[in-house]
Amino acid sequence: MHILLDLLLLIPILIFSTVESFVKLLIPKKRKSVSGEIVLITGAGHGIGRLTAYEFAKLKSKLVLWDINKHGIEETAAECRKLGARAHAYVVDCSNREEIYNYAKKTTKAFLPAMMKNNHGHIITVASAGGHTVVPFLLAYCSSKFAAVGFHRALTAEMAALGKNGIKTSCLCPNFINTGFIKNPSTRFIPTLEPEEVVSKLMKGILTEQKMIFVPSSLSVVIVLERIFPERFLNAMRRIINVKFDAVIGFKNKVQ
Amino acid sequence: MHILLDLLLLIPILIFSTVESFVKLLIPKKRKSVSGEIVLITGAGHGIGRLTAYEFAKLKSKLVLWDINKHGIEETAAECRKLGARAHAYVVDCSNREEIYNYAKKTTKAFLPAMMKNNHGHIITVASAGGHTVVPFLLAYCSSKFAAVGFHRALTAEMAALGKNGIKTSCLCPNFINTGFIKNPSTRFIPTLEPEEVVSKLMKGILTEQKMIFVPSSLSVVIVLERIFPERFLNAMRRIINVKFDAVIGFKNKVQ
Repeated sequence: MHILLDLLLLIPILIFSTVESFVKLLIPKKRKSVSGEIVLITGAGHGIGRLTAYEFAKLKSKLVLWDINKHGIEETAAECRKLGARAHAYVVDCSNREEIYNYAKKTTKAFLPAMMKNNHGHIITVASAGGHTVVPFLLAYCSSKFAAVGFHRALTAEMAALGKNGIKTSCLCPNFINTGFIKNPSTRFIPTLEPEEVVSKLMKGILTEQKMIFVPSSLSVVIVLERIFPERFLNAMRRIINVKFDAVIGFKNKVQ
Repeated sequence: MHILLDLLLLIPILIFSTVESFVKLLIPKKRKSVSGEIVLITGAGHGIGRLTAYEFAKLKSKLVLWDINKHGIEETAAECRKLGARAHAYVVDCSNREEIYNYAKKTTKAFLPAMMKNNHGHIITVASAGGHTVVPFLLAYCSSKFAAVGFHRALTAEMAALGKNGIKTSCLCPNFINTGFIKNPSTRFIPTLEPEEVVSKLMKGILTEQKMIFVPSSLSVVIVLERIFPERFLNAMRRIINVKFDAVIGFKNKVQ
C-alpha cells in the first residue's frame, strides 16, 4: 500500500520536473562569480588546460596550475598574471594517459575533505564523447574516459546523498578536438572542434553549474538514440558518419 | 547530394532493423555448442567464476581456471573433472579490485591475437549494473565498472571494424549479487540476486551470443530512462527505490 502511494506520488513529480526542465531551457542561466576563488587546473601547460586558465584569470580567480611540462606551465602562469590574476605554477607528473581516472581520484581525494567541510567547491572532470560512445582503435582511451564519466556520476550521487549541495560537479565531454592527441581526426557531419570553442562551452557550463557538458550539445541526443536503435541501424549510421583518424596516435606534446 | 542520399537510405534500414529486432525477440535463440572449446575463467575460485566453470564443464568445454586462491581453484577444478570435463587450475593474482579493467585488458591482449588469426572466439567482460548507473559510496567500484563497459563496447566496435565477425563479445551487467562483496545490499523493488540466477542468465547470454547481458533484463530499460528523465524526478525515484547496503565494504574472500 505504502509502495503504491509512493509510486503514485511519482506521477506529479514527473510532470512537474519535466515542465520545470523545459522552462529552464528557455530561461538563460546566470553565470556565477569565481572572483577570488582558488582554481586548481591540472595539465595547464598547454591546450584546453592552458586556455581554461586564461579564462579563470580574466574572471580574477586565484590560479594553481599543474603540469609535467615546466616551460609550458610557467608560460601559462606568466600570461595569467598579465591578465591580472594571481597564479602559482607547480610541476606535477600526470603524464600516464591511461591513468587519467586514477589521477583524478587521487587529486579529488586530496581536496574533497576541505571542500566538504565548507560545503563549497566545484569539481570538473575532463572526459570525452569517448566516455559515452566508443570509437574503434581507441580502446584504452575509451575505457579510461568511461571510467572518468563513472567517477563524475558517482561523485555527484555521493555529494547528493550526503546533502553537500554546495559542492558542484561538472563533466566535460567534447567530440574530437584539434589538439594533436589524435592525428587528422574527421567525421562527416560533426566538424573537428577547435580548443577555443571547447573552452568557451566549458566555461559556460562551469559558471552555470551544468552537470554534463557535451560539445557539441547534440552529442547528448546521439548517446540516447544509440541505446534505443537496433544494432544493424547503428552500424549503417556509423558507416555514414565515418569517424576517421590516422592509426598512429601521437602527441604534439607529452602531456594531454 | 551524396550525403542526402546516404541519409535517405538510412530510413528503410531503420524500419527493417527495427522490425528485425522485434521479430528476433519472439524467436527463441539457438544456443551454440561449446563442447571441446577452450574456456579461460578468471576468478574461478569461488562465486560467479566457479559456478560458471561448472556450467562449461557440463557442456564439455576444456577449462583453464585462474584465481589467486590455490585452495578454491583446485576445488573448482576437481568438481569440473567430476562433471566429466578437462580442467587446468592456475594460481594467478588478480586481486586488486580497482584494477579489474587493467587486468581484463592485459588478459585480452594475451589471447586476442590467436583468436583474431582464427577469427574464432568469445570474450566475456564481467561488469555490473554499476557500470551503467551509479550508486553513492561505491565510487571506485562504479568507475572501474564503467571502464569495463567501455572496454567491452570498444572491443566490440573494433572487431566489427576489422571484420572479425567470428569473435563474439558479451558483457555481464548484474544488479547486486549476494556474494559478500557488499554487505547486506537491498533495493526496494529489485531483489538481491543469487549467484545461481546470474550464472544461468550469463550462460544463456553467452550461448546465444548476446552482447549486453543485464540481470534482471529490466535494467536495460531503467538505464535508458535515466538518460531521458529530469534530474529532480530521478532523485525522487532513487529515494523510493532506496538502494541500501552496509557502509563498510568487505569480502567473504580476498578475490571477487
